[in-house]
Amino acid sequence: MVGYSDILRALGGSRTEGFLRSIEGKTPIFVCTIATTETAKVAGISAAGKNPEFTDYTPPADVEYLYYGRCRCIDGVPVTPEGIPTPALITRAAVHLSDLPVLVVDGGSRIKPQVPLLDLGGQPGMDIRAGQAVENVNIIFERAITLGRNLAKASDYLVLAESIPGGTTTALSVMLAMGLDAEGRVSSSMPDNPHRLKLSIALQAMGAAQLHKGDLKERPLEAVAKVGDPVQASVAGLAVGAASEVPILLAGGTQMASILAIIDKTDRSLTDSLAIGTTRWVIHDRQSDLAALVRQVGDIPIMAADLNFGASRHSGLRAYESGVVKEGVGAGGAVISSIMKTNGKVTRTSLQEQIEREYERIVDRR
Amino acid sequence: MVGYSDILRALGGSRTEGFLRSIEGKTPIFVCTIATTETAKVAGISAAGKNPEFTDYTPPADVEYLYYGRCRCIDGVPVTPEGIPTPALITRAAVHLSDLPVLVVDGGSRIKPQVPLLDLGGQPGMDIRAGQAVENVNIIFERAITLGRNLAKASDYLVLAESIPGGTTTALSVMLAMGLDAEGRVSSSMPDNPHRLKLSIALQAMGAAQLHKGDLKERPLEAVAKVGDPVQASVAGLAVGAASEVPILLAGGTQMASILAIIDKTDRSLTDSLAIGTTRWVIHDRQSDLAALVRQVGDIPIMAADLNFGASRHSGLRAYESGVVKEGVGAGGAVISSIMKTNGKVTRTSLQEQIEREYERIVDRR
Repeated sequence: MVGYSDILRALGGSRTEGFLRSIEGKTPIFVCTIATTETAKVAGISAAGKNPEFTDYTPPADVEYLYYGRCRCIDGVPVTPEGIPTPALITRAAVHLSDLPVLVVDGGSRIKPQVPLLDLGGQPGMDIRAGQAVENVNIIFERAITLGRNLAKASDYLVLAESIPGGTTTALSVMLAMGLDAEGRVSSSMPDNPHRLKLSIALQAMGAAQLHKGDLKERPLEAVAKVGDPVQASVAGLAVGAASEVPILLAGGTQMASILAIIDKTDRSLTDSLAIGTTRWVIHDRQSDLAALVRQVGDIPIMAADLNFGASRHSGLRAYESGVVKEGVGAGGAVISSIMKTNGKVTRTSLQEQIEREYERIVDRR
Repeated sequence: MVGYSDILRALGGSRTEGFLRSIEGKTPIFVCTIATTETAKVAGISAAGKNPEFTDYTPPADVEYLYYGRCRCIDGVPVTPEGIPTPALITRAAVHLSDLPVLVVDGGSRIKPQVPLLDLGGQPGMDIRAGQAVENVNIIFERAITLGRNLAKASDYLVLAESIPGGTTTALSVMLAMGLDAEGRVSSSMPDNPHRLKLSIALQAMGAAQLHKGDLKERPLEAVAKVGDPVQASVAGLAVGAASEVPILLAGGTQMASILAIIDKTDRSLTDSLAIGTTRWVIHDRQSDLAALVRQVGDIPIMAADLNFGASRHSGLRAYESGVVKEGVGAGGAVISSIMKTNGKVTRTSLQEQIEREYERIVDRR
């Protein structure tokens, strides 16, 4: 496939080109699934919120911003403890430039966003350290399948995004329970990835659930129920319901590797329809290894939006180049879809300009 | 336009043919909005449930049946007091034969269906006789607009259906408050339309709200808030959000005339994109007059599915020919969309056969 040089190819070779061909000029539905967990409130594991208690507000605020250009449940927009704004900024710019339809799914959030909200019957995730994480996991999964099946009938393909603080820690736990060598490989919204803390939480969770690594290799939903989070059950279910009909772009970082593993163990044949779309900050991150995680599941394409904020007028955006945030709210996948829907008319340059404008509008507001 | 003789044209002339052309071969999203009200529990106004208290269960049961082919919140399927089954039977047959995508919107229901559910922040409607009917009407309307705008980006057109017991009484009240000559013109799910009871409830509602006929001609949302129901705010909002981008088929009977009036007073230009799709039982009903209601708003196409159950093997279906049920859960609009999506491959005959099979499957289950 000629061109699309603003999309980096990280894994998948000719399958990646095939996936891009299958979505070229097509309109997806961009589905952002949100949830919150008590796990995210463990000090030091998430930067998605200016302090741990604030993580309950980050996902609803993200999707309010995505729909309306401003948050309603909070003032301003979600920021890291250092004040770096949410990656929803990137997502909104991409969605706006290519006029993508957006739907928001609630996997289980404590604070409900003031938007039209697709409820799957879930609850906020618990603290995995108790060895019990997600209630109603079968209900969430089954309703997500029903929804995915219907969304597939309505669209060319689906982009499945997430906003859940602490999601890489629950991803690590689920991948370990399923026997993947995930230690030290999940990403972080912080420049210094707290791998030891995450692993200790994951091991504590597995201990409380009386699990050894790989015990739930063939029982992905049990892994989610015990040591995972509600977004995993929701996004995996959406993909399982839709992937026999349309391509699926899993829009996120290393969390999507855990979701890939869940889908793979539900129905291996579905993985042929999947790809991961993320950001350059994830695939070039030296403190995590998305490709090494994905390869353990299969030869799934990984693509990345080649954004670079190094020349930004704003320190809050330049900070992305030092490893803050990296990904979230489907930022990378939204950019890829935006480029592909418009056959390349939307470019890295036009996106970065739009992101600068968005940043200025938001900072002016605050 | 040649053919499509299984779709009756009741109003609109060449505009009707134009509308049909615009949806020929196209895939809509079928959106069923549900809600319940205390008004529906007034003895004698609704047959949508085997007794008045049961009306809380009818809409959720309808959409569960639509998704899964069986209800979850009740045994069997919703029936009238005489045991005649829900029109969702027709809707499901149509949706199934043409593989239409379905989404369910909750305008405000007391019992939540066990399906993926799009929440707009509404509550069940109150008893309009107190002169206060719908809380949060502006929130519901605004979120519905946001949702409608996004669904329009994802689809060729929208089919907007409803399931709300007692909906013709709240439709009557809103139309009177907006100054339409609606007396004696709304339809009923019963063979003997209780016009006097409905009018007395509507007048009591207007009295309690200190309204005279036409007082809220230019304030449709205030009419809904005071004497209407949550479905009106939801469906009107969906249409307002979507109608500048795609055609909208309002799938229902005389309730849709009240929604048409609300849309018209929100933005007259949007009515060019609208049509009403209903059933033969509604347009041939001598105890109601959909066309007379619609004409007061404008020259909006009315089409009807030309179903006839007179030759059915089952008395429960033949009863439709004596004026029971008539319409609901978007039955007529689903049939029209099913025919148009398949360029006429789905026909009255294939639909009626599928409905017979569905009926047998359901009766066997009970």
